[in-house]
Amino acid sequence: MDIIAELRITPVGVGVSFSRYIAECERILTAENIKVRLHAEGTDIEGEFDDVMRAVKLCITALHDMGVPRLMLDLHISSRTDKLQTMEDKIQSVEAQL
Amino acid sequence: MDIIAELRITPVGVGVSFSRYIAECERILTAENIKVRLHAEGTDIEGEFDDVMRAVKLCITALHDMGVPRLMLDLHISSRTDKLQTMEDKIQSVEAQL
Amino acid sequence: MDIIAELRITPVGVGVSFSRYIAECERILTAENIKVRLHAEGTDIEGEFDDVMRAVKLCITALHDMGVPRLMLDLHISSRTDKLQTMEDKIQSVEAQL
Amino acid sequence: MDIIAELRITPVGVGVSFSRYIAECERILTAENIKVRLHAEGTDIEGEFDDVMRAVKLCITALHDMGVPRLMLDLHISSRTDKLQTMEDKIQSVEAQL
Repeated sequence: MDIIAELRITPVGVGVSFSRYIAECERILTAENIKVRLHAEGTDIEGEFDDVMRAVKLCITALHDMGVPRLMLDLHISSRTDKLQTMEDKIQSVEAQL
Repeated sequence: MDIIAELRITPVGVGVSFSRYIAECERILTAENIKVRLHAEGTDIEGEFDDVMRAVKLCITALHDMGVPRLMLDLHISSRTDKLQTMEDKIQSVEAQL
Repeated sequence: MDIIAELRITPVGVGVSFSRYIAECERILTAENIKVRLHAEGTDIEGEFDDVMRAVKLCITALHDMGVPRLMLDLHISSRTDKLQTMEDKIQSVEAQL
Repeated sequence: MDIIAELRITPVGVGVSFSRYIAECERILTAENIKVRLHAEGTDIEGEFDDVMRAVKLCITALHDMGVPRLMLDLHISSRTDKLQTMEDKIQSVEAQL
């Protein structure tokens, strides 16, 4: 089951700067068999459902291991059976209309 | 890894009424080893990470099998290591302040 | 423009307990001309777009005034022109299928 | 009140292809006094709260006018008083750690 997803991680209880924690998750995500693209408000992901979820679980564990007592994680998943579509396809189909 | 989560499912390409599809997911979620509470804009869930994700994957498969060609799924996950907390605890801690 | 929405507030930089801040937002929301229903992972809202957004802005200002240096706010909005629908309608249409 | 936000629009009841509707919203957003950056799963936005909300409302109206009977709109808002931060700053602070 191939999905396109977006992941946003919000560490709580470790101050107002998140970059150290988001960078650790980027390292974890890019080491997995998924495509990853960081943007200002989250990370777009393309991959197989189980691979994405294993990576997400590794991120949660890693952040708690770094001392984060509480974290929020928002995952938006898009799944379609009517056609194959990549992250690039989605952007291009909008830009083609502009 | 115990989490509290919220799941919102948006079937696309099958008209404007979602209740048939959301009801099918409710049946799947309640058959799993997780706690489930439906509200107006989604379903709150309490359970173990792997159990929740298996249920989510079953929902995606079931909806595609019902003829949904495209679906969006939003999952908000809350994980904390500092204390045990249930869905009821979260509501009560706010209501205690009101 | 009548909408059904869900609001989730995540204060950052003030420790791991959110109930004090969520309770303050509940007070603000219930004082406005909108319908509000707290659940474990957020607050469902029914009202006119401008009323909801004014309440959301008041929440942001109030939390910063309480000393919250950074906050995340997730707003899910549902708008439809094909029929009138309340928060109760949405839950009942799913439960009728179960 | 300056915010960084992310907007995702899901038109319902008009088939499985969204690009026409997302392009229309891009046109509306870029005509407003806000910064906009399209990515695969949404659009990042930087601007003043009232300007962003006026643009969001214009998008909802425009999509209904295009014949969309139901739509979902997800808005993630980040507000901070401790420092000025742009969308570029957020990406660079993560990339500096990688």
